[in-house]
Amino acid sequence: MPTPPAPGLVLSPSATIGEGVSFGAHVVVHAGVVLGDGVTVQDGAVLGKSPTLAPTSTAGGTDAAALIVEEGASICAQAVVFAGARIGAGTIIGDQAYVRERAIIGAGSVVGRGSAIDNDVRVGERVRIQTGVYLTAHSLVEDDVFLGPCAMTTNDDTMARIPEGYTMRGATLRRACRIGGGAVLVPGIEVGEEAFVAAGAVVTTDVPARAVVMGVPARVVGEVPDDQLLERFR
Amino acid sequence: MPTPPAPGLVLSPSATIGEGVSFGAHVVVHAGVVLGDGVTVQDGAVLGKSPTLAPTSTAGGTDAAALIVEEGASICAQAVVFAGARIGAGTIIGDQAYVRERAIIGAGSVVGRGSAIDNDVRVGERVRIQTGVYLTAHSLVEDDVFLGPCAMTTNDDTMARIPEGYTMRGATLRRACRIGGGAVLVPGIEVGEEAFVAAGAVVTTDVPARAVVMGVPARVVGEVPDDQLLERFR
Amino acid sequence: MPTPPAPGLVLSPSATIGEGVSFGAHVVVHAGVVLGDGVTVQDGAVLGKSPTLAPTSTAGGTDAAALIVEEGASICAQAVVFAGARIGAGTIIGDQAYVRERAIIGAGSVVGRGSAIDNDVRVGERVRIQTGVYLTAHSLVEDDVFLGPCAMTTNDDTMARIPEGYTMRGATLRRACRIGGGAVLVPGIEVGEEAFVAAGAVVTTDVPARAVVMGVPARVVGEVPDDQLLERFR
Repeated sequence: MPTPPAPGLVLSPSATIGEGVSFGAHVVVHAGVVLGDGVTVQDGAVLGKSPTLAPTSTAGGTDAAALIVEEGASICAQAVVFAGARIGAGTIIGDQAYVRERAIIGAGSVVGRGSAIDNDVRVGERVRIQTGVYLTAHSLVEDDVFLGPCAMTTNDDTMARIPEGYTMRGATLRRACRIGGGAVLVPGIEVGEEAFVAAGAVVTTDVPARAVVMGVPARVVGEVPDDQLLERFR
Repeated sequence: MPTPPAPGLVLSPSATIGEGVSFGAHVVVHAGVVLGDGVTVQDGAVLGKSPTLAPTSTAGGTDAAALIVEEGASICAQAVVFAGARIGAGTIIGDQAYVRERAIIGAGSVVGRGSAIDNDVRVGERVRIQTGVYLTAHSLVEDDVFLGPCAMTTNDDTMARIPEGYTMRGATLRRACRIGGGAVLVPGIEVGEEAFVAAGAVVTTDVPARAVVMGVPARVVGEVPDDQLLERFR
Repeated sequence: MPTPPAPGLVLSPSATIGEGVSFGAHVVVHAGVVLGDGVTVQDGAVLGKSPTLAPTSTAGGTDAAALIVEEGASICAQAVVFAGARIGAGTIIGDQAYVRERAIIGAGSVVGRGSAIDNDVRVGERVRIQTGVYLTAHSLVEDDVFLGPCAMTTNDDTMARIPEGYTMRGATLRRACRIGGGAVLVPGIEVGEEAFVAAGAVVTTDVPARAVVMGVPARVVGEVPDDQLLERFR
C-alpha cells in the first residue's frame, strides 16, 4: 500500500498489492485482485467487480477467478475491470474503459478511452485499440492489430432469437491487421493478417490476408503494399 | 441502509431506501430518490442528479419528480441515472450507462454498458439494449425489442436550426423488432413489429412489420420467417 | 471552497478556486487547476489529470500547463478533463465526457454526454456537440458547428504505420456546418461553412461550403437553402 493511503481507497483485505503500486483517489479494489509491481491505478477506477448477468445473458456463470494486473500496467481514471480478467505487463487500460470477466489482454497493448472489451475476449501483445471501440464476447485479436476509433464488432446473427446449439461467433482479427474507424463487423468475421479495412466499412464477409477492403458492404479494392507491412515499422 | 454503511456513500436524507438494498463504494444518492426492496447499486453510481441544460436545450424545464428504482433492479458501476426517471423491477442499468430525466424503463429490461437513454424515452419490458447504444429523446421502444451494440437514433432533422413549431421526432421501435449493431436511424423512423434491421444499416424510411432491411440506405431484402418470430422463443 | 466541504472532495493545495464554485461528491481536483467564479463541478468528476501515454503514442510530451475552467462553466458528473485543457465561460462538459490535454473549448459550447475531445483539438464558441461524439487529435471546429450524436472523426490514414515526417490530420469543421449523427469522417477532411452532412454518411472527400452530402461514400446532393442558414436563427 502507498504511504499515506490514497484518499477514498477501498481495498479488499484479500487483494494482493505489489511493490510500488500507485493509487489515485476513490479507487475500489475488490476481493482477490492481484496488482503486480509498479502498477498504476488512477482516480475512480473499479477493479475486480463481479458481473451482473441478466437471466437471458449468454455470458455464462460467474467465474470465481481473480483479476490479475501484471507489472507496470496502468488502469486509467474511471476504468472498470472485472474479476477474472488478466491485463498484461505494461498494458494501458484507458480512461473510462471497460474490460469484462475472462478477457485476457496481452503485454504492451493499449485499450483506448471508453472502449469496451467483453467477456472471453483474447487480445494479443502490442495491440492498439483506439477510443470508443467495442469488442464483442468471444473475439480473438492477435498481436499487433490496430483498431481505429469507434470500430465495433457483433457476435449474434440471431439478435437474441438463439436456436438450441447456436454458438456466438465474435470477430477474429489476425496478426497486424488494421480496422478503420467506425467500421462495423457482422458476426463471425475473420480479417486476415496484415489486411486493411477502411473507415466506415461494413464487413459482411471474411477479409483475405493483406486485402484492402472498403464500402458497404465491404469489397476488396486492392492489396496492402510491401512498404506498409508491419515489418517495415519495427 | 446497509450495516455497516458502504464506504463513501453519500445519501440524501430525503431518499427512501427499501429493505435489503445494497450499495457499493462511493455511491451518491440525491434528494428524493426511491429505491425499492432488493435494489443493488454498485460502485460509483450517481442516482437522482438533476439535468444541466444549455440555454439552447430542447429538453424542457427540470422536472421536480424523483427517481424511482423498483424492486430488484440493479444499477451497475458508475451508471448515472437522473431525477425523474423510473427503472422497472428487475431491470439492469449496466456499468457506465446513462438514463436521463423522465425516461421510463419497464420491468425485466437491460440497458447495456455505456448506453445512453435520453430524456422522455419510454422503454418497455424485457427490452435488451446492448453495449454503447444511444436512444434519443422522445423515442418509444416497445416490449421485447432488441438493440444491437452501438445502434443509434436521431431526432432532429434540422440539426439545431429548429423552425417555430417543429417537434423532435425520436425513433419508434415496435414490439419485438431487432436493430442490428451499428445501425443508424434518421429522425422519426418507425420500425415495425418483429422487423429486422441488419448491422450497419442506415435507416431512412419506415420499416414494415416483419421486414428484413439492410444497407445504406436500408432496403427491404426479405421477411422474417415464422421460425424466428418471438413466440417461438418464449 | 464551499462550506461545508463537499463529501469526498480531493482538492490539490495548488488549485485555484474562484468565488461561488460548487462541488458535487467525490470530485478530484489535481495540481494547478484553475476554476473560475461560478463554476459547477458535479459528482465524480476528475479535473486536471495528466495523460498516460503509450511509448508509441503520437500525442507528444506531457504539457505542464494547468487546466483552466472559465467562469460559469459546468463540468458534469464523472467527466474527466485533463491538465492543459481550457474550457470557455459558460460551456458545459457533459456527464461522462472526456477532454484531453491542450484541447481548447470556446465559450458557450456544449460537449455532450460521453463525448471525447482528444489532445490539441480546438473548438469554437456556441458549438453543440451531441452525445457520444469523437473528435480526434488536431481537429479544428469553428464557431456554431453542430455535431450529431455518435459522429466521429479520424486522423491517421496509415493506422499506425506512420512514415517518417507524416503529420496526423484531424477534421476541419468550418463555421456553422452541421454533421449528422453516426457520420464517419476519414482523416484530414474539411467540411465547409454552413455545409450539411447527413446522418450515417462516410465522408471521404472535402465538403464544399453550403453543400448537402449523404451516403457512403458521401456525395453532394444539394445545397443548404437560404432559410436554413444560421443567420435566420439568431
